[in-house]
Amino acid sequence: MNYSIIRYILCRVLEFQALFLTLPCLAAAIYKEKEGFAYAAVLVGCLILGEAGRLKKPRSNVFYAREGFVAVSLSWILLSITGALPLYLSGEFASYTDALFETISGLTTTGASILSDVEALSQCNLFWRSFTHWIGGMGVLVLMLAVLPLAGGYNMYLMRAESPGPTVGKLVPRVRHTARLLYEIYIVMTIIQIVLLLVTGMAPFEAMTLSFGTAGTGGFGILNSSIGSYSIASQVVITIFMILFGINFNVYYLFLEKKPVQALKHEEMRYYLGFIFTAVLFITINIRGSFQSVLEAFHHAAFQVASIITTTGYSTTDFDIWPEFSKFILVLLMFCGACAGSTGGGIKVSRIVIMLKLLKNELSYLIHPKRVRQIHFEQHVVTKEVLRSVSVFFIAYAMIYGASVLLISLDNLDLTTNFTAVAATLNNIGPGLNQVGPASNFSVYSQPAKYVLMFDMLAGRLELFPLLLLFTPSTWKRS
Amino acid sequence: MNYSIIRYILCRVLEFQALFLTLPCLAAAIYKEKEGFAYAAVLVGCLILGEAGRLKKPRSNVFYAREGFVAVSLSWILLSITGALPLYLSGEFASYTDALFETISGLTTTGASILSDVEALSQCNLFWRSFTHWIGGMGVLVLMLAVLPLAGGYNMYLMRAESPGPTVGKLVPRVRHTARLLYEIYIVMTIIQIVLLLVTGMAPFEAMTLSFGTAGTGGFGILNSSIGSYSIASQVVITIFMILFGINFNVYYLFLEKKPVQALKHEEMRYYLGFIFTAVLFITINIRGSFQSVLEAFHHAAFQVASIITTTGYSTTDFDIWPEFSKFILVLLMFCGACAGSTGGGIKVSRIVIMLKLLKNELSYLIHPKRVRQIHFEQHVVTKEVLRSVSVFFIAYAMIYGASVLLISLDNLDLTTNFTAVAATLNNIGPGLNQVGPASNFSVYSQPAKYVLMFDMLAGRLELFPLLLLFTPSTWKRS
Repeated sequence: MNYSIIRYILCRVLEFQALFLTLPCLAAAIYKEKEGFAYAAVLVGCLILGEAGRLKKPRSNVFYAREGFVAVSLSWILLSITGALPLYLSGEFASYTDALFETISGLTTTGASILSDVEALSQCNLFWRSFTHWIGGMGVLVLMLAVLPLAGGYNMYLMRAESPGPTVGKLVPRVRHTARLLYEIYIVMTIIQIVLLLVTGMAPFEAMTLSFGTAGTGGFGILNSSIGSYSIASQVVITIFMILFGINFNVYYLFLEKKPVQALKHEEMRYYLGFIFTAVLFITINIRGSFQSVLEAFHHAAFQVASIITTTGYSTTDFDIWPEFSKFILVLLMFCGACAGSTGGGIKVSRIVIMLKLLKNELSYLIHPKRVRQIHFEQHVVTKEVLRSVSVFFIAYAMIYGASVLLISLDNLDLTTNFTAVAATLNNIGPGLNQVGPASNFSVYSQPAKYVLMFDMLAGRLELFPLLLLFTPSTWKRS
Repeated sequence: MNYSIIRYILCRVLEFQALFLTLPCLAAAIYKEKEGFAYAAVLVGCLILGEAGRLKKPRSNVFYAREGFVAVSLSWILLSITGALPLYLSGEFASYTDALFETISGLTTTGASILSDVEALSQCNLFWRSFTHWIGGMGVLVLMLAVLPLAGGYNMYLMRAESPGPTVGKLVPRVRHTARLLYEIYIVMTIIQIVLLLVTGMAPFEAMTLSFGTAGTGGFGILNSSIGSYSIASQVVITIFMILFGINFNVYYLFLEKKPVQALKHEEMRYYLGFIFTAVLFITINIRGSFQSVLEAFHHAAFQVASIITTTGYSTTDFDIWPEFSKFILVLLMFCGACAGSTGGGIKVSRIVIMLKLLKNELSYLIHPKRVRQIHFEQHVVTKEVLRSVSVFFIAYAMIYGASVLLISLDNLDLTTNFTAVAATLNNIGPGLNQVGPASNFSVYSQPAKYVLMFDMLAGRLELFPLLLLFTPSTWKRS
């Protein structure tokens, strides 16, 4: 392990954190809120620590996969710890644990809250909560790669460790170019959504915060009713943008490259849209009796399906009271998640599709053991490494899942609550069912259980392995 | 597909069914019950059909894995359909669906019942229910291989398709010898248990039926209180024998071969006993407050852990009212299951261990991508084929699981009930939690949901793929 380069990267991350914190300071200044001083203090602290720690140049530029995973994990933990400070110092959270939970929930784009009254928060805190979604959606290190002239071969390792999905796609070779392009698409789409929400009559502050939550597929709202009290037009805009931010950004890249045919043929996107269509159809049929018209049922079904499959977690209605069939479709979508290479979480559509193909392949293998066969995905043969990594990801996922539910069940809440609390955090969604349903929050859990769920949120956002490696002794050996 | 040989095997299976049915006929004769006529009628029917269908010899002896899977699946379905007839004809079941559910639950050693009052059944029906556990535990085709001089190379394929676990172990080469040995061990152990239960003061009928249920890891009781009203000594005997029947039978084989050191070093057995020890320890600590002494808590914890991990499903107390932590340990054990090569169900300890090793391997791979490494299990290198089959099994398992919960949630029961109902059937356990808890039964589900759960029981017992292949069109193509 090259410790000095990790230190260097972490100091850079602190400087970026200082940069991010200027925005809530600005919000506090506009709304004349004294909580702004907390932000300013932490900003200065991050800046000094970051600059000071970076005075000594790293002794060596040796950088491999291991350094990439550790740098990414520790960066996210550092961003969480420092990002929680102003929330705690503002006095609007009961404890530092609660502030940390809220910050990790923000950065990992989960959107699970421990607050029962969101509306009581100051504007700058509300802004910061939503802005962490936007930062976490595309990733801090991707941003760093986009703007800093980092030398050496470590760009790829950082990008791979922070970007979701079984492969990083075709964009890898020119990492810096890719990182810039991703952020450009991200920024432009966010601005378009803000403008459209303003057009539907939303106030600027709300349009901005809700767009951050949509873009990062986060889900923090600024009203206790989440999205329920906004106009239908605003809800429709949010529905569409949730779906758009859940699409693999390779698709937008292909459009920019003027390859619309290839973009529209993107296999993961097609499955993703197919899943959404099927789920909306079945839920609309299942819940139509509870609404005044089929159109209204369709509207809520579409919003909720988009919100859950993209792991955003906004809600327009309390889906915890929907029939069990519709609720379980949403539970399945929680696990499925959005496309790889999007800002969404979950297992990812591409992994699900590859696993389905693996299964089909195995059945064919059992019938004709000697026939050679390969698995194709997105016009390419899936390599053995990817097949193995998809399988092992799923195994790791199930193990972490089981262990998490076991640990939080010490709080003695019911199985549905525990089961969906872990589903909601490990997949970075936000609300679960029962006591952590859309009309409730995570304050029902004890402090130790909250730390388990924080681990799950980070593990989910970083796709398990970077975080698991922190607990592997051989990671820390000097090379 | 060689249809004629499938027909031949199915006719043989019918003859075996006729043989099995002689025992409940005998029971009816002893207890002078008119329900015996139903058994006699079905017995004669099976015998005539089996003999008649076998008059024409199979045209070809071609037999591959595909024929093995189809023969095993169809045999089990045929045994279920014919085995349910006497229960239905006796008039003690509300519908043929209910009788079929009970029979499949018996043969697959699940022990899930749709009866709310077991004690109202006639003795011969009670006997048959328990005896199906004993038949299903070791498998019908294994029995057929043991006693019939079947020519050709198809023994191995049948054995592989019916025996649980990722590999069939070292016993494969001499299939007939192995099949005989397995049944000899099985019979001797069952007899020892019957004798011991008699010694603890149990009546002969109860000692026999409960031993059948233990040996097959089935779980049908003959009292509404399951095992709760028997003496502590009887409960201890059952606890010990449940654990013994959940051990890989290779261990007993090694003892017979006078290799006790090797037997005691058996890796899967060690993990299995380790899991049991750990689970009993934690549950005892967790539930000790609800019992008069630690010893009593330990007794119930040990009984319940043994019952669930071996997928037997007997209960001495209503564990649905235990704290959530203990309940979730039981849920985890439901998925784990017993050893491969035992009569127990579930994912199997060996698969869990191999998956854990795969995960550890992946973490090491991420740190040192170029280092060559292999996975060892039971002193052997695990082949790539086994690794793949374990991963794909787990994927198939999760997919069937999700689809099943989705389908039965149309009945609109709560998530915990649906989730554990599928856990209890797909893992061949019996009771779940909430509305299908140990103090309840499966009659709450509609007819369509019952068929989904029947599918799960069969899929669980035959380890998914034989049953999935029935739905794969290319299985049915003539070769």
